[in-house]
Amino acid sequence: MSRVRFKISMSLDGFVAGPKQSVENPLGIGGMRLHQWVFPLKVWRSMHGLEDGEVNESTTVVAESLANIGATIMGRNMFGGHPGPWNAKEPWNGWWGNNPPFHHPVFVLTHQARAPLELEGGTIFTFVTDGIRVALERARQAAGEMDVSLAGGANVSQQYLTAGLVDEMEISLVPTLLGDGERLFDGVGDDLYGLELVRTVATPTVTHLKFTRR
Amino acid sequence: MSRVRFKISMSLDGFVAGPKQSVENPLGIGGMRLHQWVFPLKVWRSMHGLEDGEVNESTTVVAESLANIGATIMGRNMFGGHPGPWNAKEPWNGWWGNNPPFHHPVFVLTHQARAPLELEGGTIFTFVTDGIRVALERARQAAGEMDVSLAGGANVSQQYLTAGLVDEMEISLVPTLLGDGERLFDGVGDDLYGLELVRTVATPTVTHLKFTRR
Repeated sequence: MSRVRFKISMSLDGFVAGPKQSVENPLGIGGMRLHQWVFPLKVWRSMHGLEDGEVNESTTVVAESLANIGATIMGRNMFGGHPGPWNAKEPWNGWWGNNPPFHHPVFVLTHQARAPLELEGGTIFTFVTDGIRVALERARQAAGEMDVSLAGGANVSQQYLTAGLVDEMEISLVPTLLGDGERLFDGVGDDLYGLELVRTVATPTVTHLKFTRR
Repeated sequence: MSRVRFKISMSLDGFVAGPKQSVENPLGIGGMRLHQWVFPLKVWRSMHGLEDGEVNESTTVVAESLANIGATIMGRNMFGGHPGPWNAKEPWNGWWGNNPPFHHPVFVLTHQARAPLELEGGTIFTFVTDGIRVALERARQAAGEMDVSLAGGANVSQQYLTAGLVDEMEISLVPTLLGDGERLFDGVGDDLYGLELVRTVATPTVTHLKFTRR
């Protein structure tokens, strides 16, 4: 069966988004600092149609995280929650423009029903209102032999973690503090639901901690 | 001038002690999990008069943290706070017995005055009621050419961090969740006061992240 693989960037003080998230600043104050390690990478730039870029210790981590993914699951806020662009008169198509970098089916967990949205390059957003298990079932069907990527944000990730449904978790720990915002592990409790640290990749700007199910 | 070096073990969700700290359980529920990486080490065991033990990637980190320390600063709770043994009829001499593993002057920040306490093996506990700067001044005098170790706990560490007085910080990140307890970075805000990541040592049970002042 395909595996559920979760990756996220987190600050040293445990935040995956800064405070005061908004349409103008979806990652919250300081939240962009969590992702700056990825932007210079060639593997990231080429995915977004950009040339050149660096190759460093993070390259294999990113390449690995992109490989063998047949479907993605994400929360409403990550797609663009309400209040926000979701409810605008123009239908909101996500943060990624007309040709999102997924190129496979994406299942968005929400309480608000909506018809599927097919964009360029093979990305189809399907809106699931029946909870995490139904979303996972549909994502697994779409992924076939390939794996399912859990893309965040915090709330949806917490639901999958505490249900014991995450098979692999890559925390990209950024050596910075956000001080406030959305904590990855809020409400998860005091254990990792069978996940254990199996690999660490250290760079000056990020430490990648990979956990898999025992 | 001697440097202020801070080291502490922290869970993946940012706690340095578990919930419900008490005299019987000073590290709180689950808090001992933060320190299990150190107990098998030969370098730790020999410091506590025990034979044998492992040598692994953590050994040099521990050895480095112990080298060139001339004085230690700690908070009241780390020594044994009130309410608790502090106020017992028998004077409380700390958690470490009659021959504590410091072997140098230790300055305990507290609001409760008490005469200095000299124990075996060169450890003298001095109780400082005039705040972190006075404690640091006295520790520097005692340390001479050597460095000052900031031993925790969270509250005192936060005070030194936000005052910009920490020159080196070693976070030993343990891949476990405590879910509740005392957070290292509560109230520290959204920056590291000039500290930046300079070295990572990865092991299966702990990731050592060393920060120094730019």
